[in-house]
Amino acid sequence: VSVTAPKGFIANGVHAGIRRQKLDLAIVRSTLPAVGAGMFTINRVQAAPVRLCKASLALEEPWAVVANSGNANACTGLRGDIDARAVQAEAARLLGLKSEQVLVLSTGVIGQPLPMGRILPALRPCADGLAEGPDAGKRAAEAIMTTDLRSKESVAHGPGFTVGGTAKGSGMIHPNMATMLAIVTTDYPLASHAEALALLRPAVHESFNAITVDGDCSTNDTLVLLANGASGVTRTPATDAAFVECLRSVCMDLSAQVVADGEGCTVVAEVKVTGAANDDEARAIAQRIATSPLVKTALFGHDANWGRVLSAAGSAPYNGGYAHLDPDRVCLRYNGTLVLDRGAPTGVEPDVSGSDLTIELDLDIGDGRFMYLTSDFSYEYVRINADYRT
Amino acid sequence: VSVTAPKGFIANGVHAGIRRQKLDLAIVRSTLPAVGAGMFTINRVQAAPVRLCKASLALEEPWAVVANSGNANACTGLRGDIDARAVQAEAARLLGLKSEQVLVLSTGVIGQPLPMGRILPALRPCADGLAEGPDAGKRAAEAIMTTDLRSKESVAHGPGFTVGGTAKGSGMIHPNMATMLAIVTTDYPLASHAEALALLRPAVHESFNAITVDGDCSTNDTLVLLANGASGVTRTPATDAAFVECLRSVCMDLSAQVVADGEGCTVVAEVKVTGAANDDEARAIAQRIATSPLVKTALFGHDANWGRVLSAAGSAPYNGGYAHLDPDRVCLRYNGTLVLDRGAPTGVEPDVSGSDLTIELDLDIGDGRFMYLTSDFSYEYVRINADYRT
Repeated sequence: VSVTAPKGFIANGVHAGIRRQKLDLAIVRSTLPAVGAGMFTINRVQAAPVRLCKASLALEEPWAVVANSGNANACTGLRGDIDARAVQAEAARLLGLKSEQVLVLSTGVIGQPLPMGRILPALRPCADGLAEGPDAGKRAAEAIMTTDLRSKESVAHGPGFTVGGTAKGSGMIHPNMATMLAIVTTDYPLASHAEALALLRPAVHESFNAITVDGDCSTNDTLVLLANGASGVTRTPATDAAFVECLRSVCMDLSAQVVADGEGCTVVAEVKVTGAANDDEARAIAQRIATSPLVKTALFGHDANWGRVLSAAGSAPYNGGYAHLDPDRVCLRYNGTLVLDRGAPTGVEPDVSGSDLTIELDLDIGDGRFMYLTSDFSYEYVRINADYRT
Repeated sequence: VSVTAPKGFIANGVHAGIRRQKLDLAIVRSTLPAVGAGMFTINRVQAAPVRLCKASLALEEPWAVVANSGNANACTGLRGDIDARAVQAEAARLLGLKSEQVLVLSTGVIGQPLPMGRILPALRPCADGLAEGPDAGKRAAEAIMTTDLRSKESVAHGPGFTVGGTAKGSGMIHPNMATMLAIVTTDYPLASHAEALALLRPAVHESFNAITVDGDCSTNDTLVLLANGASGVTRTPATDAAFVECLRSVCMDLSAQVVADGEGCTVVAEVKVTGAANDDEARAIAQRIATSPLVKTALFGHDANWGRVLSAAGSAPYNGGYAHLDPDRVCLRYNGTLVLDRGAPTGVEPDVSGSDLTIELDLDIGDGRFMYLTSDFSYEYVRINADYRT
């Protein structure tokens, strides 16, 4: 269950022929008036659909999302903008909405024009098949997958309301944001775009902006939240708090699924940095460790080569220099086993044989902390990405 | 020919037993009074020998270098400092020098104490075998190799003088500085530590600080320049200019050899960024492209998946944000073939079948330019780094 778990949301996924066999075109819509917000890649190179989403959100509240896999419509010049607008207009016509109420999301290969001759005709069967229920949500979740091996769905229930979501992402996973598309729906009543955005930001900060697979920030990252109030819940401070927690839960769950399904992933590691000068420095250090190819290949080899963690931590870019770290104060634990005690090796070899690993680095400088999720670099990662287009 | 090419330098390399079979301990010394300088990693975690080199250079001009492979003496706490000083003192005693005149360099595994019981006894045969000539230089070059497949040597001749050098580095290759040790010698007369350092900086900026294999900045990076004036050349502005060019040539040559011998390297790519807002932004963008795992796996797959280059370029960290880039002005060439023309794909598929590749990105914003050398990410890279300690 995912985007169709909350009341008043229908979805569908069809095979338009952008990809060879699998579902590749999805629509998710609210059957009631909705409000919502989006968060997007901060890459300087932004795909046409990202630009169109931003422009549309400035004009109208979003009621529906149309998403395709197989083609990112990025680096496609003016033609890319025209194509994205044509998809938006045709979907809006079929759904009986204004163009700007439909957000367009694309993911896949960069630099090739959208196959409009396949997408436009497929929008009608996709719209005609919109339905409630878990099967419909599942079809939408599958239609946005690219190199993902598993579809990603999550749901959280609050008192009288529901939050549901789906995400895709497997490579180019890195802040901001993990390369991916995500669609989150809720029947909780939110007032406006502004409120939706204010609630979305902190949830994304510690979920989709705290995971990395390959350190590459994409041109298409988009997360959309649609809220239609269909639950009929009367808002109180208590229900608001419950909604924040449900939204956070769905974002954390989806982002963890993205890492676990990272391209070629065989090991998932939690990188916890504590005792940093501040949270931002903790984040910079955690990100540097989680991104290091040497750390990630050691994860794959089940080798607690912890010197690589230290080396990465010591060269975490921050504020034009490196984040603060005093080698003589650092403690490092692998799965709870102390391997470095205030800068001196303990000589104890930790057990890193499992497919989950916790790396805890305590800098003993201040109160800053941040936690990152990362995957390993495997032969399979190389194979997938060397052969991606062939 | 390398460090022994200039007059008045002797060298040796022996097997001390730090590594299983190969040569692992080297000495290079000037037979005349020398001056010199060092450039070092800017990682916050600096190995004991790096700290000792800096402290020694503040007190005395360097006459000799002792270097070991197989153990980096990094993250080894107070014991690491004591061990590095003991190696320095014993080598100085054998060479008849002051301790601070001997620089100690280490490379290899991080986090394990130096095997002093093997290194100290091996210093005498190493010092006793010091000799002139290419064979002696070759032994020193081999003794500093770790995962390198080939030893790296370079020489450049000016009017009446010579610059020679050796380097090791294969993984953890990234500014600042490419993880490596390098020893450069010359019989050109330099006045002081200060002059040697002033000449070394620009040469390193565009050589060892413009290459990446895995984006990891090490704890041990050290480049040492020793100058003994044995050539007897009388300095003029013309010979000074020739020396600068020879020094640059040796640094460029050695750094290119380091990339070509990068762990698992099958393709070397030159990433040229032009038209950036300034040279620093050009450098940030070139580095981001050269470091991207998605770009590097595509190099391995001989796949001109140029969208990944654009995506990386658009997310190059600079000054707390991203370096300037206007997607609608960008032109991109692979081996001279235009694939993206002012933001629009040309549809032309470039030939990327060779083991050398040139990627040229013109931003058309300003006059900034920088060139980076990088290698691909291959299965072999993963194998080497997953199994490094086993």
